[in-house]
Amino acid sequence: MKLYVWASAPNPRRVRMFLHEKGVQVPMVDVSGAKSTLSEEYRARYPQALVPMLELDDGTQIGEAMAICRYFETLHPDPPLMGTDAKDRALVTMWEQRAYNEGMIGAAEVFRNTHPLYAGRSIPGHSMPMAQLESLVERGRHRVARFCEVFDRQLADSEFVAGNRFSVADITALCAVDFARTLARLPFPSHCVHLQRWHDALSARPSAKA
Amino acid sequence: MKLYVWASAPNPRRVRMFLHEKGVQVPMVDVSGAKSTLSEEYRARYPQALVPMLELDDGTQIGEAMAICRYFETLHPDPPLMGTDAKDRALVTMWEQRAYNEGMIGAAEVFRNTHPLYAGRSIPGHSMPMAQLESLVERGRHRVARFCEVFDRQLADSEFVAGNRFSVADITALCAVDFARTLARLPFPSHCVHLQRWHDALSARPSAKA
Repeated sequence: MKLYVWASAPNPRRVRMFLHEKGVQVPMVDVSGAKSTLSEEYRARYPQALVPMLELDDGTQIGEAMAICRYFETLHPDPPLMGTDAKDRALVTMWEQRAYNEGMIGAAEVFRNTHPLYAGRSIPGHSMPMAQLESLVERGRHRVARFCEVFDRQLADSEFVAGNRFSVADITALCAVDFARTLARLPFPSHCVHLQRWHDALSARPSAKA
Repeated sequence: MKLYVWASAPNPRRVRMFLHEKGVQVPMVDVSGAKSTLSEEYRARYPQALVPMLELDDGTQIGEAMAICRYFETLHPDPPLMGTDAKDRALVTMWEQRAYNEGMIGAAEVFRNTHPLYAGRSIPGHSMPMAQLESLVERGRHRVARFCEVFDRQLADSEFVAGNRFSVADITALCAVDFARTLARLPFPSHCVHLQRWHDALSARPSAKA
């Protein structure tokens, strides 16, 4: 099998962190091309034109970060990163989805609608021309700000995002915070002290550098 | 436990269909208020201000449709609606996520940015004022059109969205198609004959009316 990634992109990072926490090694192929595009070869192989993508030995292509994580969670259940009993699984799924919907999408709205390299192609994976929208930058900033507030409140009472155990919800939330800080160039909200404490702890895990 | 829903909204419908296919009955509370808002009482109870939400007897609130489905999938594994082995689970997750990202979000972009009742509040669950954006209507139309093309191609070779077994990916895709057709008022793409065949078959299931 092979995992197709792009070194600097936030979604492949979610899968690399997950695999590192599981202690699973998968051969990786970096498919970044010229001028912040995916390589032509990769786009021909996978017309969905997104990373990450896991290709199994039988040729099956699995796209979407959480689908790839679900594959490895089933094959390698320890340590559990997607919850244990019914309630825990539901809460991990809920916090992961919230981190994605507001954090990742909010940061993406800012990044894809401001960075000059994405002029004319503001939706990931779409080949159709799509102008950058100034109004979405403001909307993305609001979403990221709300994401930070909600997660800061949650982390006031909880060591990790979905309770007292590290989970894939922490992975998506960390990748969202770092996406917002670096590529989208939004300031870290300095009043979010619980989010800061959690961010420091997460960033010190070896998987954060995977 | 109680499931909080809104009769006409597409996300609660995903959970109602899922429960019907499982044969599980859960007491439901409709929390629609005046002028297409959630009731004040509900917003006070659940400041995230989204439906569906499952409240357990211990007070735990589980938001996000897929988190609620995960809860019941774990408690009632038969029939499996979220995949069986590692590869099948991954493919169900992938197709469900694609239906959500392009179909549900695309239809929501059209609906929330055109319907007069949503003027000034174009992001679900956000209390901050957010103007309707004409440019997002066009973008939403593109996304829904691409979603239909991709799923039509998949359904040419496959009885259901994620293979030969009905799954939660079919539920999200059906709710997305119907959201686009009805609330967002987009025409059904008549050249998508495989999507049409699947839509007819899915709509005939008793769960489609749940």
